[in-house]
Amino acid sequence: MKTELSRTLGIEHAIFGFTPFPAVAAAITRAGGFGVLGAVRYTAPEDLARDLDWMQEHTDGLPYGLDVVMPAKKVEGVTEADVEGMIPEGHREFVRETLAKHGVPELADGEASGWRITGWMEQVARSQLDVAFDYPIRLLANALGSPPPDVVQRAHDHGVLVAALAGSARHARHHADAGIDVVVAQGYEAGGHTGEIASMVLTPEVVEAVAPLPVLAAGGIGSGEQIAAGLALGAQGVWLGSIWLTAAEAELHSRALTAKLLAAGSGDTVRSRALTGKPARQLRTEWTDAWDDPAGPGTLPMPLQGLLVAEAVSRIQKYEVTPLLGTPVGQIVGRMNSERSVRQIFDDLTRGFEQAVDRINRIAGRSS
Amino acid sequence: MKTELSRTLGIEHAIFGFTPFPAVAAAITRAGGFGVLGAVRYTAPEDLARDLDWMQEHTDGLPYGLDVVMPAKKVEGVTEADVEGMIPEGHREFVRETLAKHGVPELADGEASGWRITGWMEQVARSQLDVAFDYPIRLLANALGSPPPDVVQRAHDHGVLVAALAGSARHARHHADAGIDVVVAQGYEAGGHTGEIASMVLTPEVVEAVAPLPVLAAGGIGSGEQIAAGLALGAQGVWLGSIWLTAAEAELHSRALTAKLLAAGSGDTVRSRALTGKPARQLRTEWTDAWDDPAGPGTLPMPLQGLLVAEAVSRIQKYEVTPLLGTPVGQIVGRMNSERSVRQIFDDLTRGFEQAVDRINRIAGRSS
Repeated sequence: MKTELSRTLGIEHAIFGFTPFPAVAAAITRAGGFGVLGAVRYTAPEDLARDLDWMQEHTDGLPYGLDVVMPAKKVEGVTEADVEGMIPEGHREFVRETLAKHGVPELADGEASGWRITGWMEQVARSQLDVAFDYPIRLLANALGSPPPDVVQRAHDHGVLVAALAGSARHARHHADAGIDVVVAQGYEAGGHTGEIASMVLTPEVVEAVAPLPVLAAGGIGSGEQIAAGLALGAQGVWLGSIWLTAAEAELHSRALTAKLLAAGSGDTVRSRALTGKPARQLRTEWTDAWDDPAGPGTLPMPLQGLLVAEAVSRIQKYEVTPLLGTPVGQIVGRMNSERSVRQIFDDLTRGFEQAVDRINRIAGRSS
Repeated sequence: MKTELSRTLGIEHAIFGFTPFPAVAAAITRAGGFGVLGAVRYTAPEDLARDLDWMQEHTDGLPYGLDVVMPAKKVEGVTEADVEGMIPEGHREFVRETLAKHGVPELADGEASGWRITGWMEQVARSQLDVAFDYPIRLLANALGSPPPDVVQRAHDHGVLVAALAGSARHARHHADAGIDVVVAQGYEAGGHTGEIASMVLTPEVVEAVAPLPVLAAGGIGSGEQIAAGLALGAQGVWLGSIWLTAAEAELHSRALTAKLLAAGSGDTVRSRALTGKPARQLRTEWTDAWDDPAGPGTLPMPLQGLLVAEAVSRIQKYEVTPLLGTPVGQIVGRMNSERSVRQIFDDLTRGFEQAVDRINRIAGRSS
C-alpha cells in the first residue's frame, strides 16, 4: 500500500496510527505503518523524554511521529490558575452533584488528578516540542488548528513534516496557507474533535482544496475495506485512532472501559462538548448525557470545560464508575469486538485491503 | 461496473438513481443505470399512471423502479382530517407568524397546496401500488421501514424486487426478516431521512448484517471516486439521490432553489425535523432554523409536522421566498456546482470510477 507520502516517509503501508500509548505506536511502526504518539497526556517533559527513549529503542530505526495539541492563537501569560478562576461556581456544583448522584468517591488527600488538560495549553505543548526535536521524529501533527508559524519553521528546520487535522475544506486551505505539509481530513464519524461533514464527502473536498498537498483520510476507518474506500476518495494514506484502543498493547486505565468499548455499537457514541468544551465524539455515557441535557447548566468553552471536569474524569476512571466511564472514540467502535495485538490488527487491515482491491477489480471488470 | 445485483436487473452499471422527476429517472435508465421514480408527490393515481406511461415510452425497454413511502404499521381508518385535528393551534400560529415575518403571500382562493404529504399515508401508497404493478417495474423501494408483508408478497408475485432504506444494522436485519430483497444503507450524510451513522461505518455494518442480501450504499455519493468507495465497502451498487436535483432534466419548482443548490457548500445542510417530523437532511434555511430554535415550539411528530407545514412550503416555493426556500439534499450538495445533463453526470460518474480504480491499483501495486 504505497503512495507518494508513504515513499517520502519510507514506510511499507500508508497506514498512520494515532495512539497515546508508546507500546502501540512502536508496534504500528514495526508492523510497517507509521506510529504517531499522542503527547497531550504528558505534563512533565521528562516523562515524554522517557517514552520517546523507549520508542527509539523499540522501532528498529523505522519512522514515527508525535501529535501535540497546540492552539494557533497565542494567549500570553495565562496560567492554569487564571483559567480556573473563570469557571462559574454553578458548574462546579453541577460536577459535585453529578458525581454524588453516582456515588463516586473522592481522590485521597494529596492524590493528583491523573487526567489533565494542561497538555492543551501552549506552554506545555512547547515544552513537549523542546523534547521532541531531540528525537528523530519524522512527523509532527497538531490536533487543534495550524501550529504557530515558528513551530512550523522549527519542524521544517529539523526535517520534520507537519500535519494538521481539518474538518472542512476551508479549514484545510487555512492549513495549506500556514505551510502545513500533510492534512488529516477528520470526518464526522471520527473519535475526538470532529466537524459535521462525513468522511465520504469531506475527504475528496479536502483533497481538491489543498492539492497537491497529501491528505490522510480519518474517521470511520478500522478495516481494510474502509482503507480502500479512503484511498479511493483520493487520500494518500489513512489515519486510524480508535481501532488501537482495544489492542492488547493498549494500556487503558481500566478493564471496565475496555469491556465497554468491546461491547459498544456504532450508535453508542455522541459528539459532545462534555470533555473539552468543543464537540468531540466519545462513548455516550450518563456523564455526557448530563452535560448534553438541556435542563443542565451546559458545557463551558475550551479550555474551561476541560479544567472543570479533569478531576471528575480521574475519579470516574480510578473507581471504574461504569455508567459514567467514557473515552473519545469514533463510530468504528461498533466493529471493535475483540482484543487483538497491534500486529494482528495490522495484518487484518492489509489483508482486508487486498481483498477490497480484488473486489473492486472484479466489479470494474479488470483482470487481477 | 457489474455486480450480482446489476446482472440480475440487467443493467450496465450498478448505479441506482432516485428522483421525483420521470425525465431524470428515464435518462438514468437510458444511460445504463437504474432509474427509480419517487412516487410520494403523486396524490392522484392517474397522474402516476400518466408518468409511468411516459417512462415506459422513454426507457427503450430498459429496467426502472418505483419508490413509495409506506409505513409498516397500519393505522386503520385514519383520515387526513383526523390527523389535521391533532395539530395544536400554537403550532399553526407559529407557521403564520414565521411566514408573516418574511412577508410570504397567501395562496389565491381555491388554489390547492401543491406540496402534499398525503403520499406518506398508507391508503395513498396502496393506490400508487395498484397503478405501479400494471407497469413492468423491476424494483419497488420503500423509504419508511419494511413494507407490509402483503405488499412484499404482491411485489414478489409480480417478479418485482423489494428494496428498503436502513440507517442502522438493526434496521437492516429487520428488513431482511421481512423478506426484503435489497437493503439501501442510507448514511448520515444522505439527503432526506437519515440516521446518525455515516456511510463509511454504516455500509460494511449493513453488508455484514444482511449477507448474502445485496446492499446499496447511499449517502455522500456524487462522484466516481465515491462510487468506488461505496463498492469497496462491500456494496453491490450505489444509490444516488441528491446529485440529480441540479440535472438539466430536473423540474425543480423554482430557479431560485436551483441557484441555492448550486451555491451551497457541504456544510449548508442540516438534519432537521422541520419537514416531516423525523430527522431529514435538507438545505439549512431560515425556515429550518425557526423550527430548530429552542425558543420556538419545536416540531410535531410524523405525520403531523408534514400536514402542518404543507401549505406553508407550497407558498414559500410558489413565491420563491429565498431565505426560507429549501429541499431535502445531502452533504454532496457541496460538489453540485454546475448544471449538467443526466447523461453528462452519468459519464462523469463512470469515468471517475475508472480513474479511482486505476488509482487504487497503483497504490496496491497491481499492474492495470
